[in-house]
Amino acid sequence: MTNYSNSAAEILRGIRTSKPIVHNITNFVVMNFTANVLLASGASPIMAHAPEEIDEIVAAAGSVVVNIGTLSGSWIDSMKLACRSAQERGKPVVLDPVGAGATRLRTETALTILREYSPAVVRGNPSEILALAGMEPATRGVDSVDPVEAAMEAATHVALGHDTVVAVTGARDFVTDGRLSLTVSGGSRLMCFVTGTGCAASALVGAFIAKESDALIAASGALAYLSLAAERAEKQSKAPGSFRTALIDQLYSITSEDLQFDSRIIRS
Amino acid sequence: MTNYSNSAAEILRGIRTSKPIVHNITNFVVMNFTANVLLASGASPIMAHAPEEIDEIVAAAGSVVVNIGTLSGSWIDSMKLACRSAQERGKPVVLDPVGAGATRLRTETALTILREYSPAVVRGNPSEILALAGMEPATRGVDSVDPVEAAMEAATHVALGHDTVVAVTGARDFVTDGRLSLTVSGGSRLMCFVTGTGCAASALVGAFIAKESDALIAASGALAYLSLAAERAEKQSKAPGSFRTALIDQLYSITSEDLQFDSRIIRS
Amino acid sequence: MTNYSNSAAEILRGIRTSKPIVHNITNFVVMNFTANVLLASGASPIMAHAPEEIDEIVAAAGSVVVNIGTLSGSWIDSMKLACRSAQERGKPVVLDPVGAGATRLRTETALTILREYSPAVVRGNPSEILALAGMEPATRGVDSVDPVEAAMEAATHVALGHDTVVAVTGARDFVTDGRLSLTVSGGSRLMCFVTGTGCAASALVGAFIAKESDALIAASGALAYLSLAAERAEKQSKAPGSFRTALIDQLYSITSEDLQFDSRIIRS
Repeated sequence: MTNYSNSAAEILRGIRTSKPIVHNITNFVVMNFTANVLLASGASPIMAHAPEEIDEIVAAAGSVVVNIGTLSGSWIDSMKLACRSAQERGKPVVLDPVGAGATRLRTETALTILREYSPAVVRGNPSEILALAGMEPATRGVDSVDPVEAAMEAATHVALGHDTVVAVTGARDFVTDGRLSLTVSGGSRLMCFVTGTGCAASALVGAFIAKESDALIAASGALAYLSLAAERAEKQSKAPGSFRTALIDQLYSITSEDLQFDSRIIRS
Repeated sequence: MTNYSNSAAEILRGIRTSKPIVHNITNFVVMNFTANVLLASGASPIMAHAPEEIDEIVAAAGSVVVNIGTLSGSWIDSMKLACRSAQERGKPVVLDPVGAGATRLRTETALTILREYSPAVVRGNPSEILALAGMEPATRGVDSVDPVEAAMEAATHVALGHDTVVAVTGARDFVTDGRLSLTVSGGSRLMCFVTGTGCAASALVGAFIAKESDALIAASGALAYLSLAAERAEKQSKAPGSFRTALIDQLYSITSEDLQFDSRIIRS
Repeated sequence: MTNYSNSAAEILRGIRTSKPIVHNITNFVVMNFTANVLLASGASPIMAHAPEEIDEIVAAAGSVVVNIGTLSGSWIDSMKLACRSAQERGKPVVLDPVGAGATRLRTETALTILREYSPAVVRGNPSEILALAGMEPATRGVDSVDPVEAAMEAATHVALGHDTVVAVTGARDFVTDGRLSLTVSGGSRLMCFVTGTGCAASALVGAFIAKESDALIAASGALAYLSLAAERAEKQSKAPGSFRTALIDQLYSITSEDLQFDSRIIRS
């Protein structure tokens, strides 16, 4: 039986040793925070969306993360190019369906990527995952008002239907390939008050999957790492400005040993 | 006679209870900071500029904030679409005329929005408001070198001419509908050393006006809230990096009671 | 013989007195951080890329900084317009060739700007400078894996070939006009874990060169200022989230006297 904590620790060690390039095509709101989160983890982030250079970037990258916040037509084209290039080169893709369910453009873009480019992992909030499953989310803007529990069936449905791993994040996280499911507990309530913590989760899944091809292990490991960092950050800080700073500090300070002796990933 | 502190407190309570969606079409420099400021206040920010989804976003939003920093042709089109949609749906628009007076493109874009889409509030620095009134500002780049006092007549002129509320921010803030004028004192000198504090003021006006249709009360309430947060932040920090973090912390920590017992909004 | 510390101190004093406008056409990841770095130094940053307003912005600016991260076709056009306008108006241009060597688009764009618009300073990491010299960098994504020493010959070559000053930053910095070379020691290892510290260096060179036409003196002064700030920030903080905050605080707090009595710029 897999020891998920051991696996997460080993992946983090690998990230810090080999500094995999994570290619992000992500939204304008979180680019800076995402880059800092990835650097703190030990990975090497690159943000690039020009069609002329996407294939070269993907070729050098360990993984590709596509995030559909602040979407527009030309960015959708860039995302598709990156996904196609990743597919041809056998690089894993992580999809963050920001705001799926909130607008048709976002729901359809996420579904198109899901159908045509087989992402290894989809990381979203409960409302977004419900929308991808064709169920009725209670989305308000880009924030979820559905609890994780309400999206577990949807996650399983999406995972089986698209042969992918779905990670639903919230008060606790639920990760499933449709057959085997894991939950990751912990984290901090303050994460909801910092923009881009969901996007950061997706980016970290990108870093982890660059070093570990088992998407369930990679995704749950990344979420456990973020959850531990958030818990520690909340011990240092009780408000979102300083919490955000402390979260980056903790992502940097957590060692693979810390992650190994943590046991927040359990079979669901 | 209106008790402005009571009103501000009540609006803040409403934001925290109902978490109104504030739709921002804003500049690249401040997107992240703006989102964090709105989250700290209790509102639910969304940044979206794709023509395909603007109407759906506006439909779900409580208000729309258009900010003309880092402008370009396609963003102007998006802003106009959002303003038109807001107008049709009766949602209030807040205009931040970043850099009006610095370039013709910005002055004209701001004036077009002002003329054609009747924003409920225009929030700018003194130089920007002077430019909108057709007076000669001493603008240098996007920073104002005119004091608030120099723009009070211009603010009244713009407010009356366009049937809007104008909020001029600076060492103290001046808010007017052209007939009734208020000043909001306090704040911190360090705000000038953090990019996007003016834009944050506009975004907070967006949050307040989503809960209070009287634009004068909403705008002055939002500015009082930010001013109080900045004063408290300056007590924690004497330099702009840590001040910026403390400002977010204080926006989150200030309660409606704090705002109620504060009395920085006075008749001018 | 030039006393570089005295010169750096005098430039910083000039920035704080006259608040020169620094026009940045830079990447989405670092826009906010760059603006805050420039504000902390005393300069007045403006980010603007619309062709319609570029000439007006350049006319008001003391310098132009073009940074090719998150590049795209329309941004290349904007950069060229800004460079041409700067050339015609005799305003200095600083080029940050982010990711040169990583993709053809970036290498070619940087070389085109270098050849056609005579930037006063090129500030890059070792891999980027090697790429501009046509040598083989060991670039991985946008992070350098070459040490500064490996790029000193390349820097001299680029400086002589394009009649410019080249600043290579890393564990220590190397600045050369091809004949006279300086090194700037110090800084902090944590800078590699914060996105945009290289871009911040380029932006500060932009602020310094707005006040000092000798590009070698301006570039080395800016790097000494950043290096001193980073050292002081590291004394306050051991992890990248809080280090980033402390770095801004220190850029704001360092006085011209501090810079004058510092002696980290030496003849190479």
